[in-house]
Amino acid sequence: VPGGDSTSARPTVALDGFGAESGFDALAAGARLAAADGIRLRVFGSPGELSLDGVAGIEVIPTAEWIRQEEDPIPAVRSHAEASVVRAAADVHSGDSDAMASVGSTGATMAAATFGLRRLAGVKRPALAALIPLPSGPVLILDVGASVEARGQHLIQFAFLGAAFSTAVLDVANPRVGLLSNGAESSKGTPAVVEAHQALAEAPGMDFVGNVEGTDLVGPPDVLVTDGFTGNVTLKTMEGTAKLIGNAIRGAARSNPLTAVGGLLMRPTLTSLRDELDPNATGGAVLLGLRQPAVVGHGASDAEGVANAVRLAARCVELDAPRRTGELLRSANATRGQLGGDSAPDLTAEA
Amino acid sequence: VPGGDSTSARPTVALDGFGAESGFDALAAGARLAAADGIRLRVFGSPGELSLDGVAGIEVIPTAEWIRQEEDPIPAVRSHAEASVVRAAADVHSGDSDAMASVGSTGATMAAATFGLRRLAGVKRPALAALIPLPSGPVLILDVGASVEARGQHLIQFAFLGAAFSTAVLDVANPRVGLLSNGAESSKGTPAVVEAHQALAEAPGMDFVGNVEGTDLVGPPDVLVTDGFTGNVTLKTMEGTAKLIGNAIRGAARSNPLTAVGGLLMRPTLTSLRDELDPNATGGAVLLGLRQPAVVGHGASDAEGVANAVRLAARCVELDAPRRTGELLRSANATRGQLGGDSAPDLTAEA
Repeated sequence: VPGGDSTSARPTVALDGFGAESGFDALAAGARLAAADGIRLRVFGSPGELSLDGVAGIEVIPTAEWIRQEEDPIPAVRSHAEASVVRAAADVHSGDSDAMASVGSTGATMAAATFGLRRLAGVKRPALAALIPLPSGPVLILDVGASVEARGQHLIQFAFLGAAFSTAVLDVANPRVGLLSNGAESSKGTPAVVEAHQALAEAPGMDFVGNVEGTDLVGPPDVLVTDGFTGNVTLKTMEGTAKLIGNAIRGAARSNPLTAVGGLLMRPTLTSLRDELDPNATGGAVLLGLRQPAVVGHGASDAEGVANAVRLAARCVELDAPRRTGELLRSANATRGQLGGDSAPDLTAEA
Repeated sequence: VPGGDSTSARPTVALDGFGAESGFDALAAGARLAAADGIRLRVFGSPGELSLDGVAGIEVIPTAEWIRQEEDPIPAVRSHAEASVVRAAADVHSGDSDAMASVGSTGATMAAATFGLRRLAGVKRPALAALIPLPSGPVLILDVGASVEARGQHLIQFAFLGAAFSTAVLDVANPRVGLLSNGAESSKGTPAVVEAHQALAEAPGMDFVGNVEGTDLVGPPDVLVTDGFTGNVTLKTMEGTAKLIGNAIRGAARSNPLTAVGGLLMRPTLTSLRDELDPNATGGAVLLGLRQPAVVGHGASDAEGVANAVRLAARCVELDAPRRTGELLRSANATRGQLGGDSAPDLTAEA
């Protein structure tokens, strides 16, 4: 095992060995890259497809079942205890691994982690947080799809979860937190957004910058809070718009000899811009609010994307992110009991 | 009056003479550009600020009051009958103008039009529709802010309103209609989105392409349906992302002599791309579901943006858009009575 003696040993990450859109080779190559960094991996997949025999630091646990993108995730996870992503979650729960990562079905990964790992004390709901690598600096946006709808109380807790993660893992001492809305005024937004705005504006210890619009992405806050439906649509719209503009520039650059020369001279610039905005670069999204880290990689991850998902999971373990997030939540009085009434039953809460 | 005899005379547009972020000069210059096309304008504003005395086809109706961006639009519109945007709506209602346009407060313009103009028979709620000028073709997205939340029944009617407008004004014979969601599967989305998906998939005469994600903007549908909160956030995120990338390219182009030359050679390309994505180019958003056209111009409109808002209002009149939209709604069985139950009271419906 690389990485030296046991005290400095890096964490063990349970990796889902199925579901990579770019195939088993990319998944296996990503696992090798992460192992080369000293991270230990337990991969739940097909030894034949992955060809990882004898790679130092990697153990493949033969697994034949997996949950497809098109399956309804909650029933699929509940009924397939042998599916790779469910086994990865169980491996973390049993302590054989320290964190889990998957680049398969986002819904199945979230369901497996939500049911298989324990909730942090006082957390109403986990939230999926994605780091958007903007040229002006990274923005942590949450929820991007753990739930489709959110009440005001959920948005308030997402703000604290995001701020705590930003401090614990991203090293932002006093994260600026904004609320995604359809206007800057405190009266703008759905009833849930208006309620959350009022509470966050008065929350001690929270650097709340108010409502943020999609046009405010230049000079954005460190943490951007929204419900899972809007967050998912927003994140994908940014990706779609960036792709669209990239295509248009490439098309235009080919349209005549002068612009072709211009495009050639600017290629390094355009490439580095593309790399900056590449979702593979950040390793994916993290499910916040659980006692162990769960990373949901980008479905279209290449080998580097898979490796970065595993690295992100390992980094969360090494930085003790869940425990520190829980402590920051408690010190901010932002746990379920402290935030007050929540009339709907919380079906997924730990007993 | 330019434009020839009375049978070929172009429509009269009531223009709000206040609220342009780029100032009175841009507003007046825009009015002149539209008048030069033969459109007649009745401008509710300050004759001294606008300096439009003696311009053929333009009448300035002296108006001192107006509703600011930061005012809560519904109470402001209800309590200020003399405000410019409220007078513009009244002018259309009385028949002195054929359509209205404003580049002032979006909320105030929508409220003034919703209260001041009559609803098309059977329409539950108006929806604000914006045309996004993508390189691959324009996409009509609605609602982008007439309401913040939408039930399934509203989304279904937005789909029909958008499709009808697309055919009547944008000349798309069989518009492809998509539903913005957080996943392609029919089970993905809020309960309202899932309900609308089921109904639209079975709706005769509707070319429903299913759920559309923000990453699908390359090769998008003709009409994209969503609630006003998500639509507003999505539209602004596209604008924000485009601006961000534009800034990054300009910054990078200046970073060294070779990329500077490249940037110079590509400048016409980048400029034409910027123009294609420029919200000023489309004239703004149209409030659908009313008996007379109301255009909400972009707040940051320059003179060309103001002129395009007026041109869009006039074009809707000339194409008889509201009547044709109403007919298409009825023939698609998509009016309120035909769509069935709507338990919540409809406070703004016509008596």
